[in-house]
Amino acid sequence: MPVLRYTIGVDFGTLSGRAVLVRVGDGAEVATAVSEYRNGVIDERLPESGLQLEPDWALQDPDDYLRVFAEAIPAVLRASGVAPEEIIGIGIDFTACTMLPTKWDGTPLCRLPEFRSNPHAWVKLWKHHAAQPEADRVNQVAAELGEPWLARYGGKISSEWFFPKALQILNEAPEIYEAADRLIEAADWVVWQLTGVETRNTCTAGYKAIWSKRDGFPRREFFRALHPRMEHIVDEKMMRELSPIGTRAGSLTPQMAALTGLRPGIAVAVANVDAHVSVPACKVTRPGTLVSIMGTSVCDMLLDTREAMVEGMCGYTEDGILPGYLGYEAGQSCVGDGFAWFVENCATPEYHDEARATGRSIHAVLEAYAAQLRPGESGLLALDWWNGNRSILVDADLSALMLGITLATTPPEMYRAWIEATAFGKRVILDAFRAQGLTINDIVACGGLPERNKLFMQITADVVGLPIKVSASSQTPALGSAMFAAVAAGSAAGGYDSIEVAAEHMAHLKDEAFVPNPAHRQVYDELYAEYVRLHDYFGRHADSTIKKLKRIKLMTRDS
Amino acid sequence: MPVLRYTIGVDFGTLSGRAVLVRVGDGAEVATAVSEYRNGVIDERLPESGLQLEPDWALQDPDDYLRVFAEAIPAVLRASGVAPEEIIGIGIDFTACTMLPTKWDGTPLCRLPEFRSNPHAWVKLWKHHAAQPEADRVNQVAAELGEPWLARYGGKISSEWFFPKALQILNEAPEIYEAADRLIEAADWVVWQLTGVETRNTCTAGYKAIWSKRDGFPRREFFRALHPRMEHIVDEKMMRELSPIGTRAGSLTPQMAALTGLRPGIAVAVANVDAHVSVPACKVTRPGTLVSIMGTSVCDMLLDTREAMVEGMCGYTEDGILPGYLGYEAGQSCVGDGFAWFVENCATPEYHDEARATGRSIHAVLEAYAAQLRPGESGLLALDWWNGNRSILVDADLSALMLGITLATTPPEMYRAWIEATAFGKRVILDAFRAQGLTINDIVACGGLPERNKLFMQITADVVGLPIKVSASSQTPALGSAMFAAVAAGSAAGGYDSIEVAAEHMAHLKDEAFVPNPAHRQVYDELYAEYVRLHDYFGRHADSTIKKLKRIKLMTRDS
Repeated sequence: MPVLRYTIGVDFGTLSGRAVLVRVGDGAEVATAVSEYRNGVIDERLPESGLQLEPDWALQDPDDYLRVFAEAIPAVLRASGVAPEEIIGIGIDFTACTMLPTKWDGTPLCRLPEFRSNPHAWVKLWKHHAAQPEADRVNQVAAELGEPWLARYGGKISSEWFFPKALQILNEAPEIYEAADRLIEAADWVVWQLTGVETRNTCTAGYKAIWSKRDGFPRREFFRALHPRMEHIVDEKMMRELSPIGTRAGSLTPQMAALTGLRPGIAVAVANVDAHVSVPACKVTRPGTLVSIMGTSVCDMLLDTREAMVEGMCGYTEDGILPGYLGYEAGQSCVGDGFAWFVENCATPEYHDEARATGRSIHAVLEAYAAQLRPGESGLLALDWWNGNRSILVDADLSALMLGITLATTPPEMYRAWIEATAFGKRVILDAFRAQGLTINDIVACGGLPERNKLFMQITADVVGLPIKVSASSQTPALGSAMFAAVAAGSAAGGYDSIEVAAEHMAHLKDEAFVPNPAHRQVYDELYAEYVRLHDYFGRHADSTIKKLKRIKLMTRDS
Repeated sequence: MPVLRYTIGVDFGTLSGRAVLVRVGDGAEVATAVSEYRNGVIDERLPESGLQLEPDWALQDPDDYLRVFAEAIPAVLRASGVAPEEIIGIGIDFTACTMLPTKWDGTPLCRLPEFRSNPHAWVKLWKHHAAQPEADRVNQVAAELGEPWLARYGGKISSEWFFPKALQILNEAPEIYEAADRLIEAADWVVWQLTGVETRNTCTAGYKAIWSKRDGFPRREFFRALHPRMEHIVDEKMMRELSPIGTRAGSLTPQMAALTGLRPGIAVAVANVDAHVSVPACKVTRPGTLVSIMGTSVCDMLLDTREAMVEGMCGYTEDGILPGYLGYEAGQSCVGDGFAWFVENCATPEYHDEARATGRSIHAVLEAYAAQLRPGESGLLALDWWNGNRSILVDADLSALMLGITLATTPPEMYRAWIEATAFGKRVILDAFRAQGLTINDIVACGGLPERNKLFMQITADVVGLPIKVSASSQTPALGSAMFAAVAAGSAAGGYDSIEVAAEHMAHLKDEAFVPNPAHRQVYDELYAEYVRLHDYFGRHADSTIKKLKRIKLMTRDS
């Protein structure tokens, strides 16, 4: 009888953390437990002090992360009946850039009484959007100084990323900036808690903190121009030596072993990002296959050995997703969220009634009607910019539109047109990759939408003209973290020596695939040409009607 | 005690005829009766034979019109208690172009057994749209021969008008064309039935049959080029001497007096069109005031002494609305219908629930929420082309669009944006009038919308920047017909000698007026500039995305 080995992957999401206990031999997901963050997303008032936050703020409590270890890991051990001796490693993935200020020993500043009522002492969550002035400043200074890295991020640094958030702390709470011995990604902070040793991963550094394997971080002159007190931020509050994805960060401390019920000394993997860790969990370890995480929004990732400046990329990083490859990331900021908006704001009572009567969701009812329509039949076409455009235009001021509406237009026709719009949006991204010589032969999807909306999947396949396979796991990030845990443990301990081998054994795809319908594709080619015309007409010009509407809207609200 | 005199106006609509008994002295509407057409709009199967009609057909039964006289006139006499001796005249208005083939004596061909199962023997209703190939041919031949009248109709003859319908009869049922001694507007046919004498009015001839006071009908060469057997259509089946609006067609025959309960010999006014007869009923008898009939669609009429070629006008006719003036007509093909589409296809259950709970219409609920929004606040902008664009683009292939949609967009915001779009559409029409030097100082509205949707009225005033007064009558066409009946009777019989004097006494406006809000107007000026950009971008180019969508849609449906 072979010895069975297991690892645990912990996926830190926006509202909760999820631990999955996985069998190393075949990737079977033996047990899952979820721990909701007690303080959730802090976007109105600080806990305890009740201090009111400005709009666009989004904070978290780092102790909620520790509770995930304390609650969810014992829970999967109990549920699975697996003995601690059989667990050989643990890996985590996190939202990013989610960052916090700490003391030298890793104590979060928000845990200290003197800073507990200062919002800048808390974790700034990825969707904290209050650092837009700082992001503007970063982009302005980088452009003025001609910083070479700007092109790598499609020409724009986002307000969600590391240095805008750090600069906001310095601008608005210099005492916190001073008191912070470390500024660190939450991903690396939880690994620090597990191992007792501070490490920094190449993935978040590359995608969110303007680091590259060849050039490191931006030069001191840039930081000085940004703010004199930031000149030495990397040396003072960060780290220049980074730990590559796929390596071992350290060993589980006795304290954390006691907290979790695991054995001390087992392997802890270097921290990772939720989206990126999904790539090997989708069994993708080579160029040519796009990984799409399809949910409220969509994140597209591609490995390649070629360096390409792709328009409006969210960024690319060497070794950022898998060792040995450049990892490209793009995305659509609103997909499932857009369909939910439609159901919430545009579905008439008859569809609600039918859903109730047949025990289905309203989405399912609309989907069934929409599936009976032929491409082009409704005469509708939409731009899917409900929440701006992340790739390739990188413009939050854009908004959605629908045209072709007549007195005969029905809700299922509109529902289908919105789905088609998201598929056209994806094709624009694929075309941008291809225009720079990158190859995409097929797609592997994961996330919630492939399960929930088959019509969306089929239309996407028809529009992009590529087959779409689907991950067999419904929790790919946690699975991916468990896979990296197996690699951190290594074959000597019963794990694997590379993520490629781990993916071979532990990652699985469903038999089902969505294959393009050639007849549909022909009509979609014509509609896509019109989508691109609208995309360029409304998206590429500073004085486009959509942007003017946004300015008028802001002006009206301010008046 | 002064002798009280009355007239009766009969308004022939699409589904019913309405008789209104009006006091001549002050225009008081003493009694109203409606007679529904037994055969309604015949658009699926012919009565009796059950013959199935092609799509786009819309016929009527002329005997339904006679039943209106037989039912509704006795009903208003009964209801009012007015003695037949006090009734001095009768006037009618009709939809147009609604036309039929008859024998020399006025017998409709569809009444003859040998033609009763031939659809071309029946009345072709204004919205019979099956003569589009014939309209295309009329436009093509007119363009080839350089016919001067084409410009008068904005460059395009509609499939709804007289000669396309006549040509369709000849093309598809030459035996009906041959058997038809007369081809006549239903408006003139019912007056013929009342008086026993065939007359033809200048209004329908001018607006629907390419006639003008100066040049008469198109020349024979044009008709010959259209179809050899049509060369003499005017002399063979129509009439060259036309009766001006505002004159007397004849006297009520003894037979019709017996049928209706009126006295034989009373004045019968020359036939008129429902929209145009509303102009004096709105107390407008001079240039400078636009009359807007606002309902499912909107019809705009303007009097002027200046001749102007206004882009995309539905036409203008000398003496077509009032004697001594050129009458200009434009319109929006979908207004109230568009709001109804929204309520039907986009209003979510909460608005239905609130309407039920508060005993209001869904429109009223949405209107109340929409009224709380400020112009520009939603960031939305729409083009109101649900049913194409009648003026000024004259293009049925156009469709509606909405842009500026975000995840925060709500149904009341969309409802308001659609209302704003119809107001912008009206301003485009006003600007086209003004661009040709015509003056518009204010607007008088009538129809159903001014009563039902105050927000629409206020937004229209704000957008066009003109005050809007509202007719006091909710049945302006029938009132207008009663006014023309008083003029046909003349002052000697207790009526009036001109429509101007009749309007002075018989037409009334409400005290309430919608006055532009200057603060709103400023934002609307900015939004209007964007509306015009979209209007021109999508509406003025043959390869616009909207037109391509229509072509793809047709192609898909045919395949």
